[in-house]
Amino acid sequence: MKKGSEFKVLSSESGAPSATGSKSAVRAATPSTQNSKPKTQNYFLGLDLGGTSIKAVAVTATGEKLRQRSVPFVDRDMEWAKKIRTLIRAWRRELGEPAGIGLSAPGLAAKDARSIAVMPGRLLGLERLDWTDYLASPRPIPILNDAHAALLGEVWRGAARGLRDVMLFTLGTGVGGAAMVDGHLLRGAIGRAGHLGHITVDWNGPRDDFNTPGSLEHFMGNKFIRERTKGRFASTHELVAAAIKGDAAAKEIWDRSVRALGCSISSLINVLDSDAVIIGGGIARAGETLFAPLERYVRHYEWQAGGHQARIVRAELGDYAGAYGSAANALGFDPARD
Amino acid sequence: MKKGSEFKVLSSESGAPSATGSKSAVRAATPSTQNSKPKTQNYFLGLDLGGTSIKAVAVTATGEKLRQRSVPFVDRDMEWAKKIRTLIRAWRRELGEPAGIGLSAPGLAAKDARSIAVMPGRLLGLERLDWTDYLASPRPIPILNDAHAALLGEVWRGAARGLRDVMLFTLGTGVGGAAMVDGHLLRGAIGRAGHLGHITVDWNGPRDDFNTPGSLEHFMGNKFIRERTKGRFASTHELVAAAIKGDAAAKEIWDRSVRALGCSISSLINVLDSDAVIIGGGIARAGETLFAPLERYVRHYEWQAGGHQARIVRAELGDYAGAYGSAANALGFDPARD
Repeated sequence: MKKGSEFKVLSSESGAPSATGSKSAVRAATPSTQNSKPKTQNYFLGLDLGGTSIKAVAVTATGEKLRQRSVPFVDRDMEWAKKIRTLIRAWRRELGEPAGIGLSAPGLAAKDARSIAVMPGRLLGLERLDWTDYLASPRPIPILNDAHAALLGEVWRGAARGLRDVMLFTLGTGVGGAAMVDGHLLRGAIGRAGHLGHITVDWNGPRDDFNTPGSLEHFMGNKFIRERTKGRFASTHELVAAAIKGDAAAKEIWDRSVRALGCSISSLINVLDSDAVIIGGGIARAGETLFAPLERYVRHYEWQAGGHQARIVRAELGDYAGAYGSAANALGFDPARD
Repeated sequence: MKKGSEFKVLSSESGAPSATGSKSAVRAATPSTQNSKPKTQNYFLGLDLGGTSIKAVAVTATGEKLRQRSVPFVDRDMEWAKKIRTLIRAWRRELGEPAGIGLSAPGLAAKDARSIAVMPGRLLGLERLDWTDYLASPRPIPILNDAHAALLGEVWRGAARGLRDVMLFTLGTGVGGAAMVDGHLLRGAIGRAGHLGHITVDWNGPRDDFNTPGSLEHFMGNKFIRERTKGRFASTHELVAAAIKGDAAAKEIWDRSVRALGCSISSLINVLDSDAVIIGGGIARAGETLFAPLERYVRHYEWQAGGHQARIVRAELGDYAGAYGSAANALGFDPARD
């Protein structure tokens, strides 16, 4: 993208671009002449900043998808931020002014929801970047943690539609998560609520990156696969493939992983009292090899007060869950009220 | 108490008793003559039904205590319900009509908050008893689970005043709990959220009453003390006394209990992201013998993202926490908004 081409996100209640004195704004609005009404729709723009790509959706207030895009980036010189600006400009030209923009990213969202407050180690420049200012938006752009956004997306338009008590596990390199109780997406004192991968399963196990001994992530996260398999497997995909082929050692290791997840889910049902548990992330692609034994373990360990059983369901929105959640957040979707 | 003396709780916005045609209401109002204004205050009545006694407080909207009482009962023929009626009648005579009444009890509160929906095994008659109807209250009497009420009380007027992200552990026969996140008291799909004693610490341990393997309750609850100490101690009190006197085996067993609690707290900080952890119940009377090692274990296992440390504090309201919480609930105290 061209450097220095500042782009102003304009706001108007109707969703139509308004004329301003800003040169760049005028340039951005070029496709619509002053006399022809710009092709505009009342839509919301949801952005999810990942580690290597930006996922974006443009959706109506009822969740109808108008656009969807994945934009890869290299994590240097805030290329991700510039690509987000470019993307917004392009959709603004095509669709008119969005009625709202929401964004999610890794790390802990600030209390005022204007930035990611804590994200050490990567996406340099993200911490404390005020997106409303950066994108010169006259209306605040609410920021969510990526897992929080994914859960909100799944509740709005995905596997947990209409539910208020839900937890989400994303099984991948690590084990991420988020939780909603009574329709409230749990954020917490410093925006860290829902780190469901960092609860103890075996207190005699080693402490993980977050100091949690014998954590669920330790048993299920892809990052520990070599340690767990004594170097035999380089990925959970390989492990599961070997287990399916009947490799006894692989079957046993995989069974321990699934049991750890079932045990964690059952513990957290007692804490969060969920109606449904959504499982997403790359490892969820294992399908029935994961879901069949997981269902058995959860039923074995679950309290089932009054006969209540939490449903175990697969995430539906895939890589775009966070983008949908960001759009839902921008439009003020609130299951506690809606 | 006299059977059949039905008592109507009267309602008026000012909190003053209104004249009605009800004989019992007239009788209840007897101390005030028709010409002298009844001695009345704008107060809220909080009731907490326990296993052997009813705790009650009459408090103003700012938490000033007007009355406090503990009424013992025997668990037969719904004696507890009748004693609650009698108590309300007495305070109504003395203080005038309450501006609101709230009640908490063991078990899972119904979605509509008018009753306890699930409470098997004891307090026969409590399940599905509609307190608004039973007490003939013209204004709904909101019902809370007892641990939920205790936490709300501690947040309103106790150890967690002014906080929004808090968890409570009650260490006694079992390990109970409750959680508040972002100012929302977590209730959940069937009112069971916050059963913090039923999370796994050691997945190889035996399953507890709720099917949770190696649960915190297993390591800390008084009900498992004989099992944990191979019959040497009959209560945690005895165990702690022996540990203080230098008994090496007692010290080791107690240390395991505290480590299990520290480990559980640290896990749940990652899920609930609390500012403070309140410890109540009989075992909290162990004082520094509990709190000093607990603090060390939590610091050892806690994530401490951005340097954040959750405070570990002792409950302040003791046996009356639930009654305060019920009063807070009746007056509409909402930390998410207030």
